[in-house]
Amino acid sequence: MDPIGVFDSGVGGLTVVSALRRRLPGESILYLGDTARLPYGSKSPDTVTRYTRKNLEFLSGRGVKAVVVACNTASALALPNLGPGEMPDVPIWGVIEPGARKAAEVSRGRVGVIATEASVRSDAYPRALRALRPELDIWSQACPLFVPLVEEGWHDDPITAQVAERYLRPLLDAGIDTLVLGCTHYPLIKDVLQRIAGPDVVLVDSAEQVAAMVAAGLAERHLEATHSPHHTFCVTDSGETFQRLARTILKDDGVELEWVEVV
Amino acid sequence: MDPIGVFDSGVGGLTVVSALRRRLPGESILYLGDTARLPYGSKSPDTVTRYTRKNLEFLSGRGVKAVVVACNTASALALPNLGPGEMPDVPIWGVIEPGARKAAEVSRGRVGVIATEASVRSDAYPRALRALRPELDIWSQACPLFVPLVEEGWHDDPITAQVAERYLRPLLDAGIDTLVLGCTHYPLIKDVLQRIAGPDVVLVDSAEQVAAMVAAGLAERHLEATHSPHHTFCVTDSGETFQRLARTILKDDGVELEWVEVV
Repeated sequence: MDPIGVFDSGVGGLTVVSALRRRLPGESILYLGDTARLPYGSKSPDTVTRYTRKNLEFLSGRGVKAVVVACNTASALALPNLGPGEMPDVPIWGVIEPGARKAAEVSRGRVGVIATEASVRSDAYPRALRALRPELDIWSQACPLFVPLVEEGWHDDPITAQVAERYLRPLLDAGIDTLVLGCTHYPLIKDVLQRIAGPDVVLVDSAEQVAAMVAAGLAERHLEATHSPHHTFCVTDSGETFQRLARTILKDDGVELEWVEVV
Repeated sequence: MDPIGVFDSGVGGLTVVSALRRRLPGESILYLGDTARLPYGSKSPDTVTRYTRKNLEFLSGRGVKAVVVACNTASALALPNLGPGEMPDVPIWGVIEPGARKAAEVSRGRVGVIATEASVRSDAYPRALRALRPELDIWSQACPLFVPLVEEGWHDDPITAQVAERYLRPLLDAGIDTLVLGCTHYPLIKDVLQRIAGPDVVLVDSAEQVAAMVAAGLAERHLEATHSPHHTFCVTDSGETFQRLARTILKDDGVELEWVEVV
């Protein structure tokens, strides 16, 4: 059975892969981390859309049955620019909608969204949230240092806590009750974020919701696979950082990388 | 008269442009910031070499008379892989040699080098330093958070100071007397670095040395220009961050950007 294609700018999308593997243990996954061009979060909609098209072409060429755009930035900036003919017959799912849906379900009215600069500028989460619950009050905050802090491995660290305190302060002062982790790297510093936000703020990590959406989408199209899964991890740049973080996120020491060129 | 081509992965190379403009006020400069693919400092030698070749092709196509590879990572990883036929008749200068020369001149024997992960892995600075003074003791430290901290605008900030304290501590404990700023972004946090290193440590910023080398190289080839300079700034991704930082670094509010495609 053809695999599900999952792509991200780098290693962060593996938090989605991890949720997919728990939810759909029979599915094969073909992962693409565009590590030669990461990060996407500081780049323009045109550039992110161009990279996304190239990634989709690559996954299409490898014969995937569905695509999950695990990168929040690509979901926010590129997906709205892709026509229905981009990959005919292959469903393409982003991560904004499921995250927004969960936040709209649990919030008591005041939602904070943390994401990359590009995602925040795109206004994708607030738009998705307002479409579901127009009365929500929403505050957004770009957190450009979180990704490099995660990649440095300072997951639970006093410096990360101070950076988080600075980014979250305006949202907490505004009295948010729900915080959307709008970047796939952020679940990796969830403990720090929860400690600073306090126990009354619900953290929404879209990975579980994405996995549920994919399960429903595959079932609807009768595309489920139930046995002999095989996982392949492709990267556009060779990278020790990717391998190290991949093993941590997937709790799997057997992750082998394949280098591919996507230009 | 043809311009001098200068390229960097992003905005950091403008510290070199600034030094070139002071030293060679009659020269025109064509700058290329590869902002669509930055940073280079976390990527592999193959990928950085591929990007460097593309950047050289672009500059060559625009008719430059000389090239300065202002990016330390590209100088360290890509220049050794380029043959003499890469751009016949056009001299290509990197930033490692001049920085190493200055450090070798001023050091009392113990040199620290801070740079990107990729530059540190390449061992380019220690090799250049040992070629000049084999008896030097050298300590290197990768500082992957400095570039994002600079790009966030936290130039003189308690968080930046704590990160710097953590990165520099092993070098200071080793008793370095000279610290090479092995990335063009680092001069932008020079005040913080000097405060932590203390007054007895000499900070070496290669920009001035690069400008002196370029001046000598042009004179030797009778390529100097002395009037009507015109500066052009090209970027591969549209970027507000670039424009904002460019105006700060160049102390020039008139910086206009041209978007170019380099694939």
